[in-house]
Amino acid sequence: MDMLSTCGFMSGEIILQPMIAEASLKTRKEQVGFHTKVPRNVNLEKLRNGYLFPEISRHELQHIEKYPNAKLISLGVGDTTKPIPQIIASHMANYAFGLSTDIGYKGYGPEQGNKALRKAIAEVFYKNELVKDTEVFISDGAQCDITRLQLLLGSNVTIAVQDPSFPAYIDSSVIIGQAGHFEDNAKKYQSIEYMNCGPQNNFFPDLSTTSRADVIFFCSPNNPTGHAATRKQLEELVEFARDNGSIIVFDSAYATYIKDDRPRSIFEIPGAREVAIEVSSFSKFAGFTGIRLGWTVVPEELLYSNGFPVIHDFNRIVCTSFNGASSIAQAGGLACLSFEGFAAVQSVLDYYMENAKILVETFASLGLKAYGGRNAPYIWVHFPGSKSWEVFSKILEKAHIITVPGSGFGPGGEEYIRVSAFGHRDAILEASRRLKILFS
Amino acid sequence: MDMLSTCGFMSGEIILQPMIAEASLKTRKEQVGFHTKVPRNVNLEKLRNGYLFPEISRHELQHIEKYPNAKLISLGVGDTTKPIPQIIASHMANYAFGLSTDIGYKGYGPEQGNKALRKAIAEVFYKNELVKDTEVFISDGAQCDITRLQLLLGSNVTIAVQDPSFPAYIDSSVIIGQAGHFEDNAKKYQSIEYMNCGPQNNFFPDLSTTSRADVIFFCSPNNPTGHAATRKQLEELVEFARDNGSIIVFDSAYATYIKDDRPRSIFEIPGAREVAIEVSSFSKFAGFTGIRLGWTVVPEELLYSNGFPVIHDFNRIVCTSFNGASSIAQAGGLACLSFEGFAAVQSVLDYYMENAKILVETFASLGLKAYGGRNAPYIWVHFPGSKSWEVFSKILEKAHIITVPGSGFGPGGEEYIRVSAFGHRDAILEASRRLKILFS
Repeated sequence: MDMLSTCGFMSGEIILQPMIAEASLKTRKEQVGFHTKVPRNVNLEKLRNGYLFPEISRHELQHIEKYPNAKLISLGVGDTTKPIPQIIASHMANYAFGLSTDIGYKGYGPEQGNKALRKAIAEVFYKNELVKDTEVFISDGAQCDITRLQLLLGSNVTIAVQDPSFPAYIDSSVIIGQAGHFEDNAKKYQSIEYMNCGPQNNFFPDLSTTSRADVIFFCSPNNPTGHAATRKQLEELVEFARDNGSIIVFDSAYATYIKDDRPRSIFEIPGAREVAIEVSSFSKFAGFTGIRLGWTVVPEELLYSNGFPVIHDFNRIVCTSFNGASSIAQAGGLACLSFEGFAAVQSVLDYYMENAKILVETFASLGLKAYGGRNAPYIWVHFPGSKSWEVFSKILEKAHIITVPGSGFGPGGEEYIRVSAFGHRDAILEASRRLKILFS
Repeated sequence: MDMLSTCGFMSGEIILQPMIAEASLKTRKEQVGFHTKVPRNVNLEKLRNGYLFPEISRHELQHIEKYPNAKLISLGVGDTTKPIPQIIASHMANYAFGLSTDIGYKGYGPEQGNKALRKAIAEVFYKNELVKDTEVFISDGAQCDITRLQLLLGSNVTIAVQDPSFPAYIDSSVIIGQAGHFEDNAKKYQSIEYMNCGPQNNFFPDLSTTSRADVIFFCSPNNPTGHAATRKQLEELVEFARDNGSIIVFDSAYATYIKDDRPRSIFEIPGAREVAIEVSSFSKFAGFTGIRLGWTVVPEELLYSNGFPVIHDFNRIVCTSFNGASSIAQAGGLACLSFEGFAAVQSVLDYYMENAKILVETFASLGLKAYGGRNAPYIWVHFPGSKSWEVFSKILEKAHIITVPGSGFGPGGEEYIRVSAFGHRDAILEASRRLKILFS
């Protein structure tokens, strides 16, 4: 179990069905006695079968059986737990109820999203300077747009990813056919450039030894390491992309967690509009994980090698493969960006960041190296010389706490675990207490 | 303007941005002075540039300029206009408001959809006999799942489509790389099998002359022709798929409009579970066009040529490329499938079907051959010897009514226009009056 799939990864409810064990396939085929002549997609054959979270779920279920009275704490899945501020929920409720009235009913909206929301995003997140509203495409979440971006780019491009990284970049790359074969020893796909990011390089790749790729996926603040790239680092990245004629796909899903003056958008870096796309999300910003709302910015200046604007093709993909985010979710998004809504959301972010602070201090007090947690809701804890699955098991067994083994995010995550700050305060304090007992 | 794109097609609000005229590209490039070295996706280059609805929108805008006082009636875009029954909207409103409470807040749901909704769909639409709840994957709409199905199938399969047909099948096929080149004379993509469906064959292809394809997209009741396939036709289709080892992707988005005993699901046909996938939607069933909710059924018995279950790969696609439909939309879907909700939705369907009846009778009274409208909300009107764009223009010019030219749905749609019954009654009656004056 080395590769982390996104499947089940984001689910509060863990679904083991319809996962069918490979062993049962032959039996099934014999029973059914019929199969089509349609070949299985070779790209899907290349995906590693491992699913991290069903695996974690199995550990969890076994644990509950073994310790039925233990109070299990989850610091695993990065799922929000705090209610949505009432001002935002009321707005969605009013919008939803309005759909039952002649005046409030609306059918299809524009695939690109409601104009008012696109304008609000350009204004609030980009100060109407960095990005135009017509360059903002509303989505049902960053993860969904990552696949739409892969559809846009197609199979004839090469990609680079941070290692460790959020697994959707690699999985979607494999599905579209860019990745080549998985090399079991290296635990890497042949055609993907893995840019190792760890404490030794301040979580920023050594670009002098990085091969050119057409597309560079870059997440800041990073999931899982919690590192928010500095301005200097992002300047280097943009320069690298410009020198190589690459496109950066910048994932800023956690940007609102940045507390200091690090860039919250790649478009704060001069020259980025000609080499970058930005995907972002309301999920972690406003607790919209289940409501599904995000956006992608494609600047007009971003051109393919033949001079054709990328925005033109992305618009076509959005129109063909998507039909707009739910109108109710979009109404909620607009409420988040009102003056009062934004302030209310900020107080939830502060709550999670106080959790993060407690966890960072906990690990520090134990002499463990913990990264992130200052500008991001994830803490990335180093256990030198240990396998991350073994650390995971130890913490589960001894402290009844679920974490995420770092190797699930790629080979660069070995020896680490990821700890999420998206919990209730009581659970965080209790987790801190138990961790102190376990590791002191 | 021969190919219909889905872009703008489903939008109440017509977006011309960020459509950039080809003519301006060179200027733009010179201004910017920088382009990446990333090649444009060759599949996207193959897409026809034409967008039907911006084109129609231009006609509409010109018309409004020319006749500022004309009361324009839209029977064009297939967008719902009636409010959602209060029992359903209230349920969504309550759910949305509940997200602001500790007890009501929920984060990520399962990517495959909430168990309760999957169960309700299996029960209400498939009587718990034809389909299991674990085979139902909740989506944000049929159009979105069509692309996810193409991602599943990949570029190395061949497809067949009805001609005319809903353009998303072909457009998504081009994007994934299955379609080959567009042949300007035939107005067809080289590698796609176009199955002509018209009154001469009771809107069902002559399968004895149809080439084998790996995947057959089949929509019933059909958009745009309004024809609901008979049981005998679907039995033939399933037999054809079994003989050829093909997979049918059956689009039943309009199935709840069927009034007689024609099949509402491909799974009513014996043997279909081994050769069919079904995509469906709450959009036209419950006015959820803007709310975004649908589902796809992948039976366990459906196997690739190597015996591997398709459901296994589809689950992986859903988990990697999607993160579940909006939880609020899913709450609404569940309310639609309650006893009271279902009855309330049915009364809206009856309203649209009464509209359809008025339109069918109107065309009949004029001696025009009109198809559909009995088990579907679309009427497909034949104007022998006329170009569909010319008919469109005449109706707009003389009667101030927007329709859809049939050639937008493929070469088989030439000489036809599609008329939608999703309007308010007053508008339908007024349209009927004007059409009678125009064509009598």
